[in-house]
Amino acid sequence: MRPGTGLFPEALERLITQFAALPGVGTKSAQRMAFRVLDYTPERAEAFANAITDAKALIRRCGVCQNLTDGETCSVCASERRDRGLICVVADIRDLYAIERARNYGGVYHVLHGVISPMRRIAAEDIAIAPLVERVKAGGVTEVILALNPDTEGEATAMYISRLLTPLGVKVTRLATGLPAGGNVEFADDATIFRALQERILIYPYT
Amino acid sequence: MRPGTGLFPEALERLITQFAALPGVGTKSAQRMAFRVLDYTPERAEAFANAITDAKALIRRCGVCQNLTDGETCSVCASERRDRGLICVVADIRDLYAIERARNYGGVYHVLHGVISPMRRIAAEDIAIAPLVERVKAGGVTEVILALNPDTEGEATAMYISRLLTPLGVKVTRLATGLPAGGNVEFADDATIFRALQERILIYPYT
Repeated sequence: MRPGTGLFPEALERLITQFAALPGVGTKSAQRMAFRVLDYTPERAEAFANAITDAKALIRRCGVCQNLTDGETCSVCASERRDRGLICVVADIRDLYAIERARNYGGVYHVLHGVISPMRRIAAEDIAIAPLVERVKAGGVTEVILALNPDTEGEATAMYISRLLTPLGVKVTRLATGLPAGGNVEFADDATIFRALQERILIYPYT
Repeated sequence: MRPGTGLFPEALERLITQFAALPGVGTKSAQRMAFRVLDYTPERAEAFANAITDAKALIRRCGVCQNLTDGETCSVCASERRDRGLICVVADIRDLYAIERARNYGGVYHVLHGVISPMRRIAAEDIAIAPLVERVKAGGVTEVILALNPDTEGEATAMYISRLLTPLGVKVTRLATGLPAGGNVEFADDATIFRALQERILIYPYT
C-alpha cells in the first residue's frame, strides 16, 4: 500500500511516488513535498515541472572534459584564465564542484563519471578514461592530477590511468592523503594516520 | 551564491533551487536530487514533470468535506459504507489520513484546512468552518467529533466551533487526551499526565 496507502487521489499518489524515488526521501517526506506542491500557485508548479524537463533536455556533457554544461563546452573549459596544461581528473561532477569551491585550482578538469569497480561491474570502458588519454595524446598537457577518492576503487582506477598516461611522457600526480584540515590526530582512523606518516612533510632542515 | 554556488549550468541551478524550496530539503540534498533526475531516462523525467502539473491541475477539494480529490466528491464521501450522520472534524488532510490509517472510523470527515490562530493571523473565516455549519444545518448529522490537536490553537478552534454547533442541537465531542498507546507514564509530560488524570476512565464498579 506504500507510499500513499491508497487513500490519496491517483494524481497525488503519483506525485508522492515520484518524490519518494528521490535519494534520501522517505514516504512521509514525499507526502510533505507533494502537499507543498499542491499549495503552489499554478505558475510555480509549472516552473517546477519545466525545471525538470529543461534540465533533462538542456544539460549534457562538455565535449572537452565531460563536465555538465548547457552549451558545447563547460564554463571551466570556456574560461580564458584556466591553465589547459593542467588536468585534474575527478570521478564525479560533485568532486569537481568541491574542488572549485576551494577556489585555489587554476587548471582544467576531466570527469570520469565513475570509477572502475569489479564489484559493481564497472569496467574501464564504462567510464571516460579513453577521452582523457586522447586529450593527453593531443599534446599541450604537462601534468595530470588524479583527484580520486583514497579508497580501494579510487586507487585502483588511479593506478590504471597512470599506467596509460606515463608512457605518454606526462607528469602524473595524485592528491595528498593525511589529516583533514581542522582535524584531530586522536580521532583519525588507522589508515589515515598510516598515510599521514608515510607522506610526512619535511619542515627542517630546509632543502 | 547558494544553492548551486553559481558553478552549475543555469538549467541545473534552476532545478536545484526548485528542490531546495521543498520542505526539509537542504542545498546538498537538493543537489543530489537534481543529479538523480539528470540520470533519469527522458521518459521518466517527463513522467515526474507531468506528475507535478497533473497533481496541481487535477487535485481539488471535495465539495462536501473539503478533503482532497480528483473528482467531484472524495472517496470517503462517495463511499456507501460511511455513516453520514457522524462527522469527524480535522485541521489538516494529513490528520484525516492518520485517522483512516487506524481503520476503525466509519463516519465521514470535514477538513478545516487550518486552525484559528491570532499569532499567524488566521481567522475563523480563513478556514472551512462555515461549510461545516452549513452541513450540520442541512440536517441528518447526529454527532460532530472535533479531532483537533490538543494544543492552544486546536482547543481554541474546537471551542469556537462547538459554540456554533451546540445551538443546532447536534452532539459535539472531541478526541480523548491521555497517555499514547504503548506509551510510558515515566516519560509522559506534565500536561499529558494532568489530562490523563482528569479524563480517567472508571473500571469498577461497573456502571
